[in-house]
Amino acid sequence: MFDQLGLIGCGLMGGSFALALKRAKLVKRVVGYSKSPSTTERARQLGVIDVAAPSALLAVSGADLVLVAVPVGATEATLKAVRHGIAERALLMDVGSTKSDVVEAAQRALQEQFNTFVPAHPIAGKELAGVEHADGELFKGRQVVLTPVKATLRSNVQRATQLWSGIGAKVVTMTPEAHDSAFAAVSHLPHLLAFAFTQAIANDPQGEQFLELAGPGFRDFSRIAASDPAVWRDILVSNRQQVLRHSKAFRESLRRFESLMVAGDLQALEAAIAEASRVRGQWQHDKNHDKASP
Amino acid sequence: MFDQLGLIGCGLMGGSFALALKRAKLVKRVVGYSKSPSTTERARQLGVIDVAAPSALLAVSGADLVLVAVPVGATEATLKAVRHGIAERALLMDVGSTKSDVVEAAQRALQEQFNTFVPAHPIAGKELAGVEHADGELFKGRQVVLTPVKATLRSNVQRATQLWSGIGAKVVTMTPEAHDSAFAAVSHLPHLLAFAFTQAIANDPQGEQFLELAGPGFRDFSRIAASDPAVWRDILVSNRQQVLRHSKAFRESLRRFESLMVAGDLQALEAAIAEASRVRGQWQHDKNHDKASP
Repeated sequence: MFDQLGLIGCGLMGGSFALALKRAKLVKRVVGYSKSPSTTERARQLGVIDVAAPSALLAVSGADLVLVAVPVGATEATLKAVRHGIAERALLMDVGSTKSDVVEAAQRALQEQFNTFVPAHPIAGKELAGVEHADGELFKGRQVVLTPVKATLRSNVQRATQLWSGIGAKVVTMTPEAHDSAFAAVSHLPHLLAFAFTQAIANDPQGEQFLELAGPGFRDFSRIAASDPAVWRDILVSNRQQVLRHSKAFRESLRRFESLMVAGDLQALEAAIAEASRVRGQWQHDKNHDKASP
Repeated sequence: MFDQLGLIGCGLMGGSFALALKRAKLVKRVVGYSKSPSTTERARQLGVIDVAAPSALLAVSGADLVLVAVPVGATEATLKAVRHGIAERALLMDVGSTKSDVVEAAQRALQEQFNTFVPAHPIAGKELAGVEHADGELFKGRQVVLTPVKATLRSNVQRATQLWSGIGAKVVTMTPEAHDSAFAAVSHLPHLLAFAFTQAIANDPQGEQFLELAGPGFRDFSRIAASDPAVWRDILVSNRQQVLRHSKAFRESLRRFESLMVAGDLQALEAAIAEASRVRGQWQHDKNHDKASP
């Protein structure tokens, strides 16, 4: 049980974290701050935070738990702004979708307090941004990846693990580098492809007519294209090396499919689709199995 | 009300059509045939069809309604096989996802009976193939595109419109060419991208580890990669000209996004994502609006 959560960034992720902690009775009081005063005020009105702080520094003062939930590109400036307010025994975390970059930013910003920081990435989200969509159940059954480094306090990693478990998440630990490569492949690249795909349709002179005919396949494939632009701008730039590496492999795979289409090689094309279909079907099966198990 | 549906292909689409017609009391009897005798037998056991025919020709004999629900590449051979059994006054339809190709195949195969054929494409589906997943509600609230040509009997277009409306679908009419361009953009290309993306992950030495971390974004983006290989092999080859045209536009869009990432141009990158996000959000809004209206 924590006495006070200092929440920097009262959007979807931060707000959902605050609600989940309150629901699980893991925190007594939430003091929140957002760059936009209207967001902070809205979070207070919705009961997501108890007290609206006039600055990030004041939001963390007296907190034994601090969550930084801002676009990853704003991590360094945010940590610099709050550094002198963070209590020595506090647990400090972020929720960023990239980790190597965030760890480097935290090292620079926090200096001797860097050991209190446990980098965290909850694999949860919605394509709807904003505190209005905050949801205390958002992390239930979801994975949370922690990427502590050598300097990170073991006790804080333990506390972070207990905290996320306490709101129903499954905790996985890995290095920042392994995290960034994996999420470039299964999250950042799909987002990039969905953005590029949707923009290509939007740029087509007949795009609007096409969209009128779009069905459930389009709906699911492009859902993530509606994600928050500021959040994803930062993720794609922060993790660009890994994303571009996986994008290259994707483009080569696309070329192979197109060559088979041009050649009219039905047998090889069916085999290639069957391979993709099998892998995706197996993943779904494993996931459902995960859900069924206790 | 039809007396007898001759169903060629008792898979997901054909089976769902038969169930929907029975439920709406629009047909008295369904005689079915599938290439695989075990599928035909399974369809009979499940009550999807009433009588199992030993050949496609026998399935259409005496039918006043015929539905050909086979992979589009098999359309011509199927129509040739049944041609001499089709009654003069019958309504003949397909459910293929490509239409120019199907219309040409039907012209060659049906000759003087071509005027009975109303090319149809219901915008519905599941990533689960097979008669086991047939669902009488599959077409409810979905669009069905009819692509009649000059020779098509007006009376049959009317009957087709009433029939699809009777099982809850919304009928749209357009030319085969307009259909193929639009569906290349909003359906065939997303499938191709999802296949290529999933295969690229499968080919990565760390692919399995990556997949363990995949979350809801991956789930929705890649759902269509689990689609039926024989069906999609045929669609991608049949409509390759349009699909490759839209794929080229997509690749150019992807290149622009990648250039912005490499340049670290946060402002332009955010604007590009915001455009995609806006278009996708608007589409969702319009769709929900459609649903809300009577």
